Amino acid sequence: MEIEIVAVGNELLLGETVDTNSAHAARRLAETGVRVVRTTHVGDDHARLVALFGEVRARSPWAITMGGLGPTHDDVTREAVAEAFGLPLEEDAAALAEVEERFRRHGWEMPPSNRRQAMVPRGARVLPNPNGTAPGLVVGDGSCTFFVLPGVPSEMKPMLETAVLPVLAEAAGDGATVVKSHVVHTIGIGESALAERLDGVVRQAGDVQVAFLPHLGQVDVRLTAAGLPAAEAEGRLRELVDRVVEGARPWVYGTDGASVDEAIGDALARRGWRVAVAESCTAGELGMELTRTAGSSAWFAGGVLAYANEVKASALGVPADTLARHGAVSEETCRAMIEGVRARLGAEVGCATTGIAGPGGGSVEKPVGLVWYGVGTPEGTEVRRSLFPGDRAGVRRRAALATLALLLRVARGGAA
Amino acid sequence: MEIEIVAVGNELLLGETVDTNSAHAARRLAETGVRVVRTTHVGDDHARLVALFGEVRARSPWAITMGGLGPTHDDVTREAVAEAFGLPLEEDAAALAEVEERFRRHGWEMPPSNRRQAMVPRGARVLPNPNGTAPGLVVGDGSCTFFVLPGVPSEMKPMLETAVLPVLAEAAGDGATVVKSHVVHTIGIGESALAERLDGVVRQAGDVQVAFLPHLGQVDVRLTAAGLPAAEAEGRLRELVDRVVEGARPWVYGTDGASVDEAIGDALARRGWRVAVAESCTAGELGMELTRTAGSSAWFAGGVLAYANEVKASALGVPADTLARHGAVSEETCRAMIEGVRARLGAEVGCATTGIAGPGGGSVEKPVGLVWYGVGTPEGTEVRRSLFPGDRAGVRRRAALATLALLLRVARGGAA
Repeated sequence: MEIEIVAVGNELLLGETVDTNSAHAARRLAETGVRVVRTTHVGDDHARLVALFGEVRARSPWAITMGGLGPTHDDVTREAVAEAFGLPLEEDAAALAEVEERFRRHGWEMPPSNRRQAMVPRGARVLPNPNGTAPGLVVGDGSCTFFVLPGVPSEMKPMLETAVLPVLAEAAGDGATVVKSHVVHTIGIGESALAERLDGVVRQAGDVQVAFLPHLGQVDVRLTAAGLPAAEAEGRLRELVDRVVEGARPWVYGTDGASVDEAIGDALARRGWRVAVAESCTAGELGMELTRTAGSSAWFAGGVLAYANEVKASALGVPADTLARHGAVSEETCRAMIEGVRARLGAEVGCATTGIAGPGGGSVEKPVGLVWYGVGTPEGTEVRRSLFPGDRAGVRRRAALATLALLLRVARGGAA
Repeated sequence: MEIEIVAVGNELLLGETVDTNSAHAARRLAETGVRVVRTTHVGDDHARLVALFGEVRARSPWAITMGGLGPTHDDVTREAVAEAFGLPLEEDAAALAEVEERFRRHGWEMPPSNRRQAMVPRGARVLPNPNGTAPGLVVGDGSCTFFVLPGVPSEMKPMLETAVLPVLAEAAGDGATVVKSHVVHTIGIGESALAERLDGVVRQAGDVQVAFLPHLGQVDVRLTAAGLPAAEAEGRLRELVDRVVEGARPWVYGTDGASVDEAIGDALARRGWRVAVAESCTAGELGMELTRTAGSSAWFAGGVLAYANEVKASALGVPADTLARHGAVSEETCRAMIEGVRARLGAEVGCATTGIAGPGGGSVEKPVGLVWYGVGTPEGTEVRRSLFPGDRAGVRRRAALATLALLLRVARGGAA
């Protein structure tokens, strides 16, 4: 089953807005067994819209439009759809009541221009919009059906779920083949090492496609089943997800959007440990990452942002001699920061980062991107040196993620 | 002058990738005086590509395609363009030499499949790609010209700048009218208050369009000149930017992508002050924001992530009595955190945040979103209470930004 998407708005053609709506809808449509064959961006221009809608109507059985349903004169999607289908626009009493009700509920007076939003092509079905004033529409003849949706993502997405996907799923039928994905998230292992480990799984993946997606010290494994009915696709994927998780267990922190802090929290809680951070070059990124999820106060004590050398000395007790002899970016300082933060904050586990994020401040011996980071626990301390690529933000992010990867391994009781 | 964009790739139609390329190109084209009238996403499908390219060729004088130039059999843009223009594909010696040279430079062996990247429609011009293996192409007949670019953003963008925009600018001529924008960034003032202050400027903006774009405690003012030649547009915009900056001075932190930490750093450096942060609910976000830019070590000392109450007491010296009597989320604790971090870290200025980021942990008296934050300097201490909307990440971000806004005002010597 094939469909087209049309995203309407001058802001798209001026590059003021990136079209995230289409990607969202395309993913959900693929999961429902409907294939997007073309997506078009077009401006708020009546003549161009009528021409495009005419083309789409002639070549496609289904289409979704997004945008151009607002109350102002710029918003002409409603009129253009009506014209493309040769239908007159008429005021719809139920639609008008819904628009008026929304204003009443908020205690606002309805501007006269919003009355336009209740104009409906004759015979079209009105889709209620609980999240905004613009009702959606279903307009069709025997050969082509348009779902006409608002462009505001928080209004479009619920309408897609409740009013569009069920209709398309039913039209596609139970045997419809879908495109469905699951993602397994890993941290602390490179793309090729991971691919090697999972070689056996990949070979036996059959019709499930396996993609390795590296990004900044993490590698996602995306498993995609295409060409199978929904239940069968889900079954095949679940089986493969389990095998990938099994094959890469020490590095896996979750699936389908999980965040690494939760996996770390689980592992720390299991040990009865709390963690404290001593951050120099990351300057707060470790703390932020570790507290993304509610409940982190159970295992995150706090930290010291030891940006200036005096703070490394005064707040963490790094010996002046260590700083003078080895410098702030050194294994010795990193170890002292770990011990200092554990002792001062009374935490079983300490993490530290110290490095040169750049762009300035590098030397031949200590170039930009050089970072010492480490984790100390009652079982021992592990400190590592890395030379991270990228700009300032990239170096900091990679340093934070490498530290989190090490913390996860250590908290799980693996060799650091 | 009008142009179409075609973005090629199955990943776009499956929603695996959001198309940021088109928005980037559209913005640069608008600034060059070329108007994008349609953008189309299409899959790596030879027949569909040939059909679409035929349509575009028939209706548009100019087009840019992006993607589908890789070495694999999925990449069929090259072949489809040739077919749409009725041209045979031939191996281009110069293009082949360029592809080979790129592999040689990296010490890699060229896989035979990359030879396909040197196939060129007869008569087409080859665009060198210093950032990848896929050369671009310019293919045209008397009435329509296609710029055929790679889809990888880091390869597409430089090729757009060096090989596409200059040609289009020349074709458009000196009198071509452009769409050009500048943005003035503000923090610490709401949208309607800002709009009121700038009412006089907006009224006299004439043909420059003024848009207020609020996002999480900041409001950007976007000034757009459309329908004027480039030099005239730039002149009008500069004049308006100066008036907006003048009219909103206490809240302006920069223009066109400036970041707030630099404005804070400038103001602190002028006073000869260093700042230290005491973060509870923001847990590192203040530190990260303040150190975004190299050189921040001149005025950022460090901080304490006082997540647990024991850390507020031990590392910041918040009296146990204050915590017991008023709680961690209180004006009194916030003040003690500010004084503690100034004293312990030896900084002239201290900032603190303490609040309930949620989703759990709220009560009737202290609901989720309640945050106390403040700034202390040698001139005095200002503490504020806010109830921020949004989810956990949103509350934390708003709390951090409100604190930065206050720090900026105070460092500039304004009333806090």
